[in-house]
Amino acid sequence: MLEPPATTRAWHLVARPVGEPSPQDFALRETPLAPLGDGRLLVRNAYFSVDPYMRGRMGDTPGYAYFPPYALDEPLAGHAVGEVVASTAEGFTPGDHVLHFAGWREHAVVPAAEATRVDPEAAPLTAYLSVLGMTGLSAYAALFHVASFRKGDTVFVSGAAGAVGSQAGQMARLKGATRVIGSAGSDEKVRLLVEELGFDAAFNYRTAPVAEQLAQAAPDGIDLYVDTVGGDHLEAAIHAMNEHGRIALCGAIAQYNDVEAPPGPRNLAQAIGKRLTLRGMIVTDFQDLLPRFTEEVTPWVRSGELTWRETHADGIDSAVRAFLGLFRGDNVGKTLVRL
Amino acid sequence: MLEPPATTRAWHLVARPVGEPSPQDFALRETPLAPLGDGRLLVRNAYFSVDPYMRGRMGDTPGYAYFPPYALDEPLAGHAVGEVVASTAEGFTPGDHVLHFAGWREHAVVPAAEATRVDPEAAPLTAYLSVLGMTGLSAYAALFHVASFRKGDTVFVSGAAGAVGSQAGQMARLKGATRVIGSAGSDEKVRLLVEELGFDAAFNYRTAPVAEQLAQAAPDGIDLYVDTVGGDHLEAAIHAMNEHGRIALCGAIAQYNDVEAPPGPRNLAQAIGKRLTLRGMIVTDFQDLLPRFTEEVTPWVRSGELTWRETHADGIDSAVRAFLGLFRGDNVGKTLVRL
Repeated sequence: MLEPPATTRAWHLVARPVGEPSPQDFALRETPLAPLGDGRLLVRNAYFSVDPYMRGRMGDTPGYAYFPPYALDEPLAGHAVGEVVASTAEGFTPGDHVLHFAGWREHAVVPAAEATRVDPEAAPLTAYLSVLGMTGLSAYAALFHVASFRKGDTVFVSGAAGAVGSQAGQMARLKGATRVIGSAGSDEKVRLLVEELGFDAAFNYRTAPVAEQLAQAAPDGIDLYVDTVGGDHLEAAIHAMNEHGRIALCGAIAQYNDVEAPPGPRNLAQAIGKRLTLRGMIVTDFQDLLPRFTEEVTPWVRSGELTWRETHADGIDSAVRAFLGLFRGDNVGKTLVRL
Repeated sequence: MLEPPATTRAWHLVARPVGEPSPQDFALRETPLAPLGDGRLLVRNAYFSVDPYMRGRMGDTPGYAYFPPYALDEPLAGHAVGEVVASTAEGFTPGDHVLHFAGWREHAVVPAAEATRVDPEAAPLTAYLSVLGMTGLSAYAALFHVASFRKGDTVFVSGAAGAVGSQAGQMARLKGATRVIGSAGSDEKVRLLVEELGFDAAFNYRTAPVAEQLAQAAPDGIDLYVDTVGGDHLEAAIHAMNEHGRIALCGAIAQYNDVEAPPGPRNLAQAIGKRLTLRGMIVTDFQDLLPRFTEEVTPWVRSGELTWRETHADGIDSAVRAFLGLFRGDNVGKTLVRL
């Protein structure tokens, strides 16, 4: 075994962004690694994920922060997969691959209790950060638990070319949706949705009002909406909802950088007459679904019925750029930093 | 038996109100009564109710109309109780009292199948339009079904001196709420809530921002909100909500007369991180709860643990005035027109 490194490069939050984060809010710093101690793993990260929800942890806007805010001048955190290079924990040996939460850095020392072994033979390593990980579980929980999907539903997904949206749309199709509609931010993404991911209809929300395009795509209304965007999309979805429709509130990327409180859906009172249910969710509440999720989704992944896209950024230097790109819609599917 | 009248006085909608309804939108007209035919009852109405939801049926604002719009130049409709004066239906005889839907008029001919016998010995006749009727059932369904009340909840009710609100607050207390908070539109109503209806705290929403007053009244946040108002109240409630809080969207009286789409709650994205559920309801979906509701609520009414207030307007001429008063908060409890 090589001598373990004493330090690693890690992205730190150095200022709380106000509005859109800028590169100056972050710093890549050489940071001491914790001593290995007992029951710990030294992991060389192979990939880590950058996600919209992290914006909430960078600021202190109440309600957007699903977890405690990131500490200033400390390494950022998030999901990562990597290879164990040293272990003082029973059951783990160098060469093992693990999923853990010490992302945004090259090497990490993590308690074995906070690491999950993953099998790179069963699926590509990145799948554990995307289709088979929290991303896939988010889509699964949103559809089948939060929004009580029913066979025959017409389903609308916003941010449908994004990490969670692309999974939600495909899962709805696989479970018997009558019609699956997606919105995305470019014509190229719209083509991807319809031609490769099996959406029945899709539209580019930048080219015309969402409400108009949704009405055209869903002439008989929608029954279920997976909201990753908020804003205009939510208002349009409420308008298009059929009676007893259900909305999973999974994210509001359109609003995460707002400094002023953004307008709410002006038509929320329609929820009364239409008997709509809107329910917020965060995926960490649904860990107990993981076994059932894995059992149901893995065969779809193996058979190719459920596909996924990843946008890779190369090298730790690119991480902040990749994160900022999420808010411009630069990504397709899950955004990962490859080390 | 007296010769049945050939006509009756009935309020007609003669113009669809835009914004706040005005007396000119209504006309009291002498109207032919339908022939008695078979299986019908001629009823002399004793009381009929005027309700905020009726505003939705007068216009064509989508989403506020829970039922089809009222036809122009036809009698308005709504709940009424009265005495049978002639019957061609088996099982009904003159002198019986019935609850039916042909309100806004003095006499009505109604199919017996659409009438429910009520017992004026068991409870005052008006109770079947309020505490033991759709009003009480609305509060019951909102709390215990739509918003999944749990013992120990801190409950906030808007329009708490109103028909539904006053019932919801008391029922929450009777079922073990930790704290019940109400908002109302006058200091006198606030006193009623605290001193007579057993609310733990109440405030006058006209004297200071709702969010501030709610934060003071609920320093540990709220778990359940029964919304009969919409607007500022809903936004303040979302802000005050604890994690996994539940909101029953029962009405939006603050907005029913809006011509422009009203602002939505600007903080709805808090529903994600807090995992809130917002659910719209209309009481007609909960008819199957009626037996259980009656069984549970009647003893509370008999024992005096659950009280109710009514605002009576005298004579059919006063009906439109009473209806318009709902939007100014003139009423306490259920507003009924006494004939």
